[in-house]
Amino acid sequence: MAADGDVDQRSETQRAIVEATYAALQTHGYADLTIQAIADEFEKSKSLLYYHYDTKDELLIDVLKDGLDQFATRNAVDPDATPREQIETFLDRSLPATLDDETRAFRLTIFELRSQAPINEAYREQFARADRLLHETLVEILERGIETGDFRDVDPAYTTDLLLSLTEGGMTRHLVTSDTAEVAARDTLDTYVESTLLAD
Amino acid sequence: MAADGDVDQRSETQRAIVEATYAALQTHGYADLTIQAIADEFEKSKSLLYYHYDTKDELLIDVLKDGLDQFATRNAVDPDATPREQIETFLDRSLPATLDDETRAFRLTIFELRSQAPINEAYREQFARADRLLHETLVEILERGIETGDFRDVDPAYTTDLLLSLTEGGMTRHLVTSDTAEVAARDTLDTYVESTLLAD
Repeated sequence: MAADGDVDQRSETQRAIVEATYAALQTHGYADLTIQAIADEFEKSKSLLYYHYDTKDELLIDVLKDGLDQFATRNAVDPDATPREQIETFLDRSLPATLDDETRAFRLTIFELRSQAPINEAYREQFARADRLLHETLVEILERGIETGDFRDVDPAYTTDLLLSLTEGGMTRHLVTSDTAEVAARDTLDTYVESTLLAD
Repeated sequence: MAADGDVDQRSETQRAIVEATYAALQTHGYADLTIQAIADEFEKSKSLLYYHYDTKDELLIDVLKDGLDQFATRNAVDPDATPREQIETFLDRSLPATLDDETRAFRLTIFELRSQAPINEAYREQFARADRLLHETLVEILERGIETGDFRDVDPAYTTDLLLSLTEGGMTRHLVTSDTAEVAARDTLDTYVESTLLAD
C-alpha cells in the first residue's frame, strides 16, 4: 500500500476514535468513562483501539489535541477575509450567540476535559498550547485591522488577552448557569467589541 | 439542650463535613470521590455523615452551596468601605494576583464541581444563584461608586457582566494552562478597571 494510503487510513482511524470518544463522553461523562465504553462506540476493530492506547487519559489527550487544533489553528480564520470578518468568525467560534446541539456537545466535551487540566500536566500542556495559538491568531488579526483602519489603535496584546478571558468566561458562565441555547454573555462581548475595537 | 446549642452544633457538624469534603476532593478528585473517602477525612462520627447524606452528589451540593455563599454573598464586601475599596476587594477575591495554596485548593474544588453543572441541574442552580448574587453585589458597588464620583459614568449592568466574565475567564485560563502562583490575567483586569472604570 502506498504511503498516502497509510496516511489516509491512519487519519480515518483517528477520526473514528475521536468520534467514538465524543460519543462515549457524552453518554458517560469523564468520571465514568472507560476505554471499554469508547470501544463500544467504535465502529472499527476494537483491538485497534486497545493496540493504540493503554489508558483512557492517553486516548483523551490525543482527542483533546485534535479538538483544540481544529478550534485554535490559524486555518480556522480565512486569510483572504477582512479583519472585521476575521474577528466576527473568531467571536462566533469562541462565544456563539446561540448554541446548536452539536456545538453544545463539543463545548461540553472540551469543558469536561478542561476540568482535568489543573491536576494533569499533559492536559494542561494541551490547553496552554491552544491558548497560545489563539493568542497569536488574534494578535495578528488585530494588528492587521489596526493597519487597515478597520480597528481603532488599541494595544493588540492587551485587547487579545481581554477578549480571550471574556469569551472563555462568558462561555463558562453560560454552561454552568443555564441550559438555554441563547448565550446572553455574547451581547456584552458585542458591545465591548463595537464600542472599543471597531473603527467608526 | 437549648435551640441555640442545636444551631451551634449543627453548624459545627456542617463545617466539619465541608472540611472533610474539601480534603477528600483534593486527594481523590470528583471522579474518584466516594462518601467513604469523605468519611475517612471526617473527624466526627461517620454514622452522622451517612445519616445526613445518601449520595456524594447530595453532600457535594450542600458543600457547594456553602462555599458559594461564602464567596458570593454581600457580606463578602464591607458595607462601610469606599466603592474603590469594595471593587478592589471584589477583584482580589475573584481573580487574585497570586494564588496561595489554600486559595488555589478552594478554587480547584469549585472548578471541579463546576464541571458537573452542565449535566446536573442541582449544581447548575447553585452556580446560577451565585452568579446572580455576585451580579447584584457588583451592580450595587458600581452604582454607588458612580454616585460618589469614584467611578466614571459607566453602564452598571454591562460593566458588571463584563467584569464577571473577565474574572471567570481569567481564572479558568490560569488554572487550565499554568501551575504558577502568579495570575497573569490579573494585569489585564487591572488595566481594564483603571482605564475604563476608575475616575481620574
